[in-house]
Amino acid sequence: MCGEVQDMAAEEPALRRYYRNTILQYDSLDCALVHHLSNKLANDSVGSGEWYKLLEGVLREPCGGKLVELMRADLQAIMTRDPACEGAAHALLNYKGYLGLQASRVAHELWLRKRRSLALAIQSRVSEIFGMDIHPACRIGRGVMIDHATGVVFGETAVIGDDCTILHGVTLGGTGKDRGDRHPKLGCGILIGAGALILGNIRIGDGCKIAAGSVVLMSLPAHTTAAGVPAKIVGRAME
Amino acid sequence: MCGEVQDMAAEEPALRRYYRNTILQYDSLDCALVHHLSNKLANDSVGSGEWYKLLEGVLREPCGGKLVELMRADLQAIMTRDPACEGAAHALLNYKGYLGLQASRVAHELWLRKRRSLALAIQSRVSEIFGMDIHPACRIGRGVMIDHATGVVFGETAVIGDDCTILHGVTLGGTGKDRGDRHPKLGCGILIGAGALILGNIRIGDGCKIAAGSVVLMSLPAHTTAAGVPAKIVGRAME
Amino acid sequence: MCGEVQDMAAEEPALRRYYRNTILQYDSLDCALVHHLSNKLANDSVGSGEWYKLLEGVLREPCGGKLVELMRADLQAIMTRDPACEGAAHALLNYKGYLGLQASRVAHELWLRKRRSLALAIQSRVSEIFGMDIHPACRIGRGVMIDHATGVVFGETAVIGDDCTILHGVTLGGTGKDRGDRHPKLGCGILIGAGALILGNIRIGDGCKIAAGSVVLMSLPAHTTAAGVPAKIVGRAME
Repeated sequence: MCGEVQDMAAEEPALRRYYRNTILQYDSLDCALVHHLSNKLANDSVGSGEWYKLLEGVLREPCGGKLVELMRADLQAIMTRDPACEGAAHALLNYKGYLGLQASRVAHELWLRKRRSLALAIQSRVSEIFGMDIHPACRIGRGVMIDHATGVVFGETAVIGDDCTILHGVTLGGTGKDRGDRHPKLGCGILIGAGALILGNIRIGDGCKIAAGSVVLMSLPAHTTAAGVPAKIVGRAME
Repeated sequence: MCGEVQDMAAEEPALRRYYRNTILQYDSLDCALVHHLSNKLANDSVGSGEWYKLLEGVLREPCGGKLVELMRADLQAIMTRDPACEGAAHALLNYKGYLGLQASRVAHELWLRKRRSLALAIQSRVSEIFGMDIHPACRIGRGVMIDHATGVVFGETAVIGDDCTILHGVTLGGTGKDRGDRHPKLGCGILIGAGALILGNIRIGDGCKIAAGSVVLMSLPAHTTAAGVPAKIVGRAME
Repeated sequence: MCGEVQDMAAEEPALRRYYRNTILQYDSLDCALVHHLSNKLANDSVGSGEWYKLLEGVLREPCGGKLVELMRADLQAIMTRDPACEGAAHALLNYKGYLGLQASRVAHELWLRKRRSLALAIQSRVSEIFGMDIHPACRIGRGVMIDHATGVVFGETAVIGDDCTILHGVTLGGTGKDRGDRHPKLGCGILIGAGALILGNIRIGDGCKIAAGSVVLMSLPAHTTAAGVPAKIVGRAME
C-alpha cells in the first residue's frame, strides 16, 4: 500500500503531509487505520489523541488480533468487489463505509466487555460523520463491504454473516411492534441493493440477493432473489 | 440524569472530562442541551461560544419556557418508545434525531420572529452534521421522536402533531407541482416507518401507521394503516 | 447578492463576521464560493488554506472560466426552481446540494487531468460533510439542482444532462452485475423525485419525470413519466 501512496504523494505535493500523517509513517494497516479513525472521530469534546488511546487500547486486548484480521478481510472484500475502487489506500483513506464499519467493530468489542457508554459514543460519532447508524450489539461477520454507506441503519439484534455486500440506505430494522430480539439475521454471501429495508426477526439465507428498493418482511431461503414492496421471491440467485 | 452520567464517567475515565463538560457541570437539562448543541453546530465560521449566545438568547425570551418543556417531552418520548435507549443521558449525548429536532425547534422560534437568516443557518448546519433537513417554518408538536434521523426531510409547510414517531429517511415533501402550501399535515400519535415518502398537501389522521418504504400521495383517515408504492390503506391501526 | 447579505448582517449582528468572511469581502461569486467550500472541506488533515490553494488553482486553469459559468448557472437554477429559496446568498451559504455539486465539478476537472487521488479525496469529503457521493468521473451538465442532497449517489459512468432537478436520496447506480460502463445516462430537463433508484446503463430521455420512490430499471423515452417498483411509464410528462 505504501507504494501506491508514495505515487499519490508525488502526484499531489499539497497532500504529501496528509499522506505521510495518515499512511506513510505507519508500519501496519491497523496502525494507520486507528490513527485515521481517531482523526475522524475527534471533535472539540474528545480529541484525536484521546480517541487513539481508546481505540488502540482495544487492539491491544486479546480480541485485537481478530479485529486486525477483520480490518484486512474487509479491505480485501472492497478490492475484490468494487469496480470503482482505485486501490487499498484509496479505500482506507476515503471509503466511509469501510471506516465506519471498522469503528463499529471496535464498538462491538467494547459492548461485549460491558463498556457500553463508550460503545454508544462511537456509534453516535459514526452516525454523525459517516451517516451510518450501527448499534454496537449488532454482530457482523468477516469480509463485509458497505458501499457508499449514507443512511445505513443496523439494529441492536441484527446479525450479518461473512462476505455480505450492503449498499447505502439499507436498513436492518424492527417492525416497531416488538421488543427484545427484533432484527434480521443474515447468512453469508448476501447482496443487498441500495435502499432496501429488511424488517423484523427474519432469516435471510446464504447467497440471497435483495433488489434495490425492496421491503423484505419475510424470511428468504438460501440462494433466492427477492424484489418489490413488499418483496417476493422472483428467482434463484446465481453467483 | 446526573447519577447515570456519574456511573458512565466512573466506567470510562477517558471520557470523564467529556461528561463533565457536557452534562455534569450543568444544573438543568436545557443548560446542558444548549451547550452540547452549540458544540455540535460550531465550526471555524461560527464558534461554539457564538452559537451558545444565540441559542441561549432564544431560551431567555418569553417562548423559552415552552421550548424547555418541549425538550423534556421529546426526551421522555424516546425513553418510552425506543427499546434500544440506554437512558436519558445517552439520548441527550448521542441521538442525532433528538439533537437535530431541538435545534430545529429553536430555529422555528427564530423563524416566527422573522430572524430568517439565522433560522436558515441552523437548518443548514443541522442538515450537514445530522443529515436531517427540517425547514424552520415546519410546525412540530410535542413528544416527537425522530429515530436514526439520517435522510429526514420536512418541508416548509409541513405540520407534525403531538406524539409522532418518525424513522430515518422519511420525507414530508411536495409533489414538485405546487408552490405555497404544499406539504403534508400530520395529526397526533402517528408512526412513520423508515424511508416512507409522504408527498403533497395531504392530511394524515391521528394514530395512522405508515409502513416503511411507502409512498403516500393521498390523505388518510384517522387510525388507518397504509403501505405500498403508491400506498393504500391496508388495515386499521391498533395501539 | 451583497445587498442581500448586508441586510442579513444588519439583522443578525452575531453573524456579521461570518457574513463578511464568507461573502462580503469577496468581489465575485466564484471567489466567495471557493473560500466557503475550502472551509467546509477543511479538517485537521488538510486545512482550509491548503484546500483553497488546490481549488483556486483549478479555477485558474483554462477550464476555470467554464467552471465559473457552471457555478452561476446552478445557482440560477435554484433561484428559478426552488419555492423555498430565500435568495442567492442563502443558497450559496446553506444549500449542501449546491456546495457539494460545485466541489464535485472541481473534482471532475481534476479527474479529467488524471489528478485522481485529489479528485477522490474531494469525493470522500463531500460524502462525509454533505452526505452526497458523486464519483468524480460522473459527467454533469449545466443548470443542475440537487435538492436536500442527503443520500444522493451518482456512479462513475453516470451522465446527467442540462437543467435536471434531482431530489435527495436519488441513486444513479449499477445493477451489481456489470463492470465498465454500468450507470444511467440522463438527458436534459429531467425531474427525479426523492429516493428514486435509477439502475444500470439505461437512457432516460429529455424531459422525463420520475416519481419519488421509483426503481427504474429500463430506458425511458423522452417526456414520459415513470413511477413504481419497478417503475412503469404512467403518462406523458408535461411541463
